[in-house]
Amino acid sequence: MDLQTLDFDPERDLMLERVLPVSPERVWACWTEPRHLERWFTPAPWTTSDVVMELRPGGLFQSRMTGPDGEPLLNIGCVLEVVPLRRLVWTDGMWPGFRPKTTGFLTAFILLEPHPEGTRYIAIARHVDAKGRNEHAAMGFHDGWGVATDQLVALAKTL
Amino acid sequence: MDLQTLDFDPERDLMLERVLPVSPERVWACWTEPRHLERWFTPAPWTTSDVVMELRPGGLFQSRMTGPDGEPLLNIGCVLEVVPLRRLVWTDGMWPGFRPKTTGFLTAFILLEPHPEGTRYIAIARHVDAKGRNEHAAMGFHDGWGVATDQLVALAKTL
Repeated sequence: MDLQTLDFDPERDLMLERVLPVSPERVWACWTEPRHLERWFTPAPWTTSDVVMELRPGGLFQSRMTGPDGEPLLNIGCVLEVVPLRRLVWTDGMWPGFRPKTTGFLTAFILLEPHPEGTRYIAIARHVDAKGRNEHAAMGFHDGWGVATDQLVALAKTL
Repeated sequence: MDLQTLDFDPERDLMLERVLPVSPERVWACWTEPRHLERWFTPAPWTTSDVVMELRPGGLFQSRMTGPDGEPLLNIGCVLEVVPLRRLVWTDGMWPGFRPKTTGFLTAFILLEPHPEGTRYIAIARHVDAKGRNEHAAMGFHDGWGVATDQLVALAKTL
């Protein structure tokens, strides 16, 4: 996995790394097919709906998250890079069509690699600055992304 | 040229379109080789130096512009999409490695297509909002990018 070229910066980036007991094909499907994303993307009791994933550079990545009290959160971002079964990069720092936003929070790198036990899985959240990184860590990045990844694996096993 | 998928928005985007009397190979070289960029990128008497162009998604695009009174302007942006001889997309709205910035101004699309007279050339400046587009128009987008393009053609003819 080409981590060196990512220039991971521990002061501004967060990373979750795991070996998942499902194939890269299934992990990729969970990340790229809206009907799958809607089933695993948010830790319960939050839910995800209205997912749009245009799987090309500049494409729209949209999701609507809804909390237990019905509070809605519409996320509109942009797909940056797509290498099937290997690498998906998207950001909330651009509108679709690569239009710059001034309210971006993060870029996410999803990196997959075949592993004897299934898939080596790395998810990186790259923030504007250390403040954003630290807020995300305090919001529970590791627990939140960890629980969502458990949900992804549970779903992937059924595909 | 795949303009439809660009979703050009006249309220927030600006476009320069021309047929250039030089081949796409030469236009591409002028846009992607730092030693060439430094010769045409800014309308005189402004000059450009210290160009870095990492020609891959997430790569660094850096230039330093210097005005007639020596005022320096360092631009650090990110390459978004590279289709050799056809399409170069970059932005000042991300740091290299796709790190989001909250001070972005534009994304630039450089689109080339072979033409009987040389190259059909389209340059699009996609702004955060209509205010950015209107400021860029008032700053002299069409004259500025037009003069720079004249400089590009003059250089390309000598390659």
